[in-house]
Amino acid sequence: MVFYLIGLGLGDVEDITVKGLNIVRKCKRVYIEAYTSILCYGLDTSRLEEYYGREVVEADRTIVEQKSDEILDGADVDDVAMLVVGDPFGATTHTDLVLRAKQKAIPVKVVHNASILNAVGCCGLQLYNFGETVSIVMWLDGWEPDSYYDKIASNMEKGFHTLCLLDIKTKEQSVENLMRGRKIFEPPRYLTCAEAARQLLVILERKREAGIQPAYSESSPCVGLARVGWDNQEIVFCSLKELSHYDLGPPLHCMILPGQMHPLEIDMLNTFKPTAVSIT
Amino acid sequence: MVFYLIGLGLGDVEDITVKGLNIVRKCKRVYIEAYTSILCYGLDTSRLEEYYGREVVEADRTIVEQKSDEILDGADVDDVAMLVVGDPFGATTHTDLVLRAKQKAIPVKVVHNASILNAVGCCGLQLYNFGETVSIVMWLDGWEPDSYYDKIASNMEKGFHTLCLLDIKTKEQSVENLMRGRKIFEPPRYLTCAEAARQLLVILERKREAGIQPAYSESSPCVGLARVGWDNQEIVFCSLKELSHYDLGPPLHCMILPGQMHPLEIDMLNTFKPTAVSIT
Repeated sequence: MVFYLIGLGLGDVEDITVKGLNIVRKCKRVYIEAYTSILCYGLDTSRLEEYYGREVVEADRTIVEQKSDEILDGADVDDVAMLVVGDPFGATTHTDLVLRAKQKAIPVKVVHNASILNAVGCCGLQLYNFGETVSIVMWLDGWEPDSYYDKIASNMEKGFHTLCLLDIKTKEQSVENLMRGRKIFEPPRYLTCAEAARQLLVILERKREAGIQPAYSESSPCVGLARVGWDNQEIVFCSLKELSHYDLGPPLHCMILPGQMHPLEIDMLNTFKPTAVSIT
Repeated sequence: MVFYLIGLGLGDVEDITVKGLNIVRKCKRVYIEAYTSILCYGLDTSRLEEYYGREVVEADRTIVEQKSDEILDGADVDDVAMLVVGDPFGATTHTDLVLRAKQKAIPVKVVHNASILNAVGCCGLQLYNFGETVSIVMWLDGWEPDSYYDKIASNMEKGFHTLCLLDIKTKEQSVENLMRGRKIFEPPRYLTCAEAARQLLVILERKREAGIQPAYSESSPCVGLARVGWDNQEIVFCSLKELSHYDLGPPLHCMILPGQMHPLEIDMLNTFKPTAVSIT
């Protein structure tokens, strides 16, 4: 009948739309995309199952990429849904799955929802003043990529704000477990604003050492955001140096390096200074 | 108690989130922001009132800008909500109202939802490949602004896609009614993809006449989108020239001028060619 891609929004079970909930309840099979740790968004499958009153099957990257036929199997006669954190076309896309459905002549419908890409507007920075979004990768064991620096610099030069999405590591195996072929996974890890800020400070030093005038400095203004859209959301507006010491608590974090700020943007950001009473 | 800003998503009454609906039902007063024609989004206040089972007060630009005290009045003791089409921080923002609430020490909570800014990903173009969003203004009576051209050209140069939001005219008065001081408003008008494409073709001619090599041509690929997120959503992938003749039906429309396209983006866009069977 129909293959539905349903956005779950920012992490609370009640962030699903009424339309989305009605569809979930009537579908024959319901999957949840578990690429990014849905746990980092506060969602675990059993909680969703309880809330929806039905079974929800976790589909990790391997299943979605290699077994898309399994997911779409029977979607020509029954309704099948894939649940996705955020908006189905937010930070990751599902073009491949949609294309396969279309090839099989299965109608595809999308139930949109909030994505971090627009929800960050809650800090007061205007969405149309954002440049390219970057992903900051977690530095591990001497692997220290910094390709996002150039994009930040390019946005800064044009006066644009840069949204930095922060890395999540899920289903990682220890070297020992990997070598022994044991499918035991480490607990999910996520990059915090403080860690990301520290990485940016190291990059800053390296640029200086290389004789390059860096695009930002220790005192550049930054916005740290944690758990956007949740009841315990936290936003802080401070310097990059300050952010590198600031504890924003549990995941998920993201950060913004503002470009040129307009007076109203600054007024709003000032309500998130570390000293201000925290009002979400 | 709390001042809530609640996103309504893309236009169906059921696009509200479950969380948003629960809040709307318990608030003392509920307003709907009627800046942009909510009718163009298929929403009329009486339909919302029926669905929510409660009164909803329309607040136009004047009320929100000049009478924000009235809206916030009593929000320190009772819950008050402002409903907004899309995401509260999507195409327009409500920074001013939020700032006033904060000044009055009224807690502000936001219930996010889908916005056209991320929902356009449904055409297959990756959101992180979009440059600055532009607004195409409706040409009227010889007033033919073209400042958005430079932004499109700048995005194109960098290989970025450009989302073009199209103008909506609401609460416009005829010259006669304006002169006679009669508060009679013309029916809302909205710019269609075809009209916007025609304006872009005129700008193209003018650039050529001025000896400027234009950023796009008649045969440049375009995406026309109508009623994104609705059951009768339509997407078409064709040339700018073709789009200038293409009828995408009722509002709301937006269009995209793609920059550099990746193979998977092209595969997906090809499913929206005018000749293909329309699958939403």
